[in-house]
Amino acid sequence: MVDPIVRRREVIKKLSRLGLDVWKELNDTRFPSIKLPSRSVRNIVYDEKERGYVLGDLYKVRTAANIAHLRKFAQFMWVAYFAKELIKSRKTSTLRDVYYSSQAYEISFDEQKESDDLITDLEAYIRHPREEMNIFPAERAAIFGELKIEYTVPGYEGRVVDLSQHPDGLMIGHAIKTAKFNQCKAERVFVIEKDAIFNRFIEERVFKKYKAILVSTSGQAPRAARYLIRRLNEELGLPVYIFTDGDVYGMHIAGVIIYGSANAAHVRELHTPDAKWIGVWASDIEAYKLPSDPFTDKDLKRLDELLKDPRYKDDPWRKELKRFKKLRRKSELEAFSRYGLTFIVDNYLKDKMEHFMSEEN
Amino acid sequence: MVDPIVRRREVIKKLSRLGLDVWKELNDTRFPSIKLPSRSVRNIVYDEKERGYVLGDLYKVRTAANIAHLRKFAQFMWVAYFAKELIKSRKTSTLRDVYYSSQAYEISFDEQKESDDLITDLEAYIRHPREEMNIFPAERAAIFGELKIEYTVPGYEGRVVDLSQHPDGLMIGHAIKTAKFNQCKAERVFVIEKDAIFNRFIEERVFKKYKAILVSTSGQAPRAARYLIRRLNEELGLPVYIFTDGDVYGMHIAGVIIYGSANAAHVRELHTPDAKWIGVWASDIEAYKLPSDPFTDKDLKRLDELLKDPRYKDDPWRKELKRFKKLRRKSELEAFSRYGLTFIVDNYLKDKMEHFMSEEN
Repeated sequence: MVDPIVRRREVIKKLSRLGLDVWKELNDTRFPSIKLPSRSVRNIVYDEKERGYVLGDLYKVRTAANIAHLRKFAQFMWVAYFAKELIKSRKTSTLRDVYYSSQAYEISFDEQKESDDLITDLEAYIRHPREEMNIFPAERAAIFGELKIEYTVPGYEGRVVDLSQHPDGLMIGHAIKTAKFNQCKAERVFVIEKDAIFNRFIEERVFKKYKAILVSTSGQAPRAARYLIRRLNEELGLPVYIFTDGDVYGMHIAGVIIYGSANAAHVRELHTPDAKWIGVWASDIEAYKLPSDPFTDKDLKRLDELLKDPRYKDDPWRKELKRFKKLRRKSELEAFSRYGLTFIVDNYLKDKMEHFMSEEN
Repeated sequence: MVDPIVRRREVIKKLSRLGLDVWKELNDTRFPSIKLPSRSVRNIVYDEKERGYVLGDLYKVRTAANIAHLRKFAQFMWVAYFAKELIKSRKTSTLRDVYYSSQAYEISFDEQKESDDLITDLEAYIRHPREEMNIFPAERAAIFGELKIEYTVPGYEGRVVDLSQHPDGLMIGHAIKTAKFNQCKAERVFVIEKDAIFNRFIEERVFKKYKAILVSTSGQAPRAARYLIRRLNEELGLPVYIFTDGDVYGMHIAGVIIYGSANAAHVRELHTPDAKWIGVWASDIEAYKLPSDPFTDKDLKRLDELLKDPRYKDDPWRKELKRFKKLRRKSELEAFSRYGLTFIVDNYLKDKMEHFMSEEN
């Protein structure tokens, strides 16, 4: 991880530069303009080096010379100003908060979507995620395992926390996300979509048996969790395995952790290309004869979307998507309890990891 | 708090007794039957001593002699058996898990609602919440503050955690819920509906300024959070103040923490009658000229329901419900950012607490 203090300086520098550039143009009696990376679908491309989705080379120019741009131009400048104020005053905020804060400055947004969009523009412009401008989402993921971390957030610098000492798990918020990794006894990371299974894994001492750090995403993984998963993979070299429900939504949860999301194609460091989707696969539903529910029309529609998504063109994605299409049934992680509460650990996890661990280096 | 080990024994005893009673009746060649407290609306009454909703004296008898009862009777016995197995084997589970587990025993439930209902019946029958039978909900509330706790869960007994050392907050799961309170420097509890405001309160050092333990409920407070809030109030004698969005849903979130929910009328210890709803009130929206949104039809319908709810017959509820009815507008906690990010702490919280703290003791 790049030192958070270095990052902070970088972001402040880029925001200052933006203001200075506009000021200079005004001072030269020119209409100021800004060149923004395009975030349109056309400009979202797969990057071989990053092994994830990134923005391409298309730009749009927003200029004060065009009356149709003027409002957005001014709003954009305010968002950048506000972000800089947040960082300098060491205060944090949320998307919702930025929307309301605008009113204190008599900047008017018609709805929150307007300010959200401009914050995303700003992320793309300075190439830093909004979290580095102290604009945080509500985070509800949790972590547990044999890893000691050291906080870097102001007021808590240097405090060490042993993540195996809190059996309810620690919330993955800004402080955990930016903590240093101090001492790690774990050898891999298990990412789990469902809290219930996260808790079962703690209870059945999966963290010991498999020397695994456990991360619960509570559904779609929040950005802080994705950032942390990548750091565990990159900085500690730990292989990452993802457990989701056996349906198209679970599959996509794994896909976003591995390849990133189109929404965040302009932000790097939120995907973990080497992470593996362990299941629940359509073929697991069949092999383990899991209790299952029929696909709804919505599920089928989503399935067809994923079949067209370039992220899912290879196996196991492709193979499993086709099986789902044929099977037209879905199963949750909890469905393994059909064979007893510990079956998921004693049998399913064991079967899967025998296969996957043999591939680890 | 009653010692968890004592509780555990009590629950096992009651479950064993249930099994023994049924066995005896069978052995005497009689049709076994069980007498269950009725959970119908008619039987949910306000209890002056508990200052919350409890079940009244109505019962229903479920008997194996009636063919229409037979299926439910057998399912109920299995649920009780399974709960006892969970406790004895020190494993935990969720509502969803119990539903799937039934299939391992060839007990068939048509849908999860069936098994959920029987678990609620069992709670009412033995008068213990399902958490004491190791059936847990997914919990996502968090806590922060100057309180040291000591875990009592197996494997972590005696470990002390300082809740002020984790700036992301600690998740309120089973381990925190059942921990001993070790050392408390706080003098009150602030319960907050929104994570964003919980984080702001940590950041603005509200826990220091007001010597407050901060609890984030992330919307409707999970049962573990409600149980913990009650314990903080009862065992440590700390006054509890609740901050919600200024709308009928926020109001009801406060109401459930204070008076309990009809769904859990059969479980004690989940409500905190002395807790106070601080706002956001309808009158706050007016007094602070907060940005607001118009009520939807759904909001208005919910408002009329609350006006008929006996829990909200006194002030401030009554007064504020009427104001909402007149105003027909709602504001979120984040709306205070209209006056700057720290306004909610520097002004709103200050104004409110000047009033409420003068009433403490």
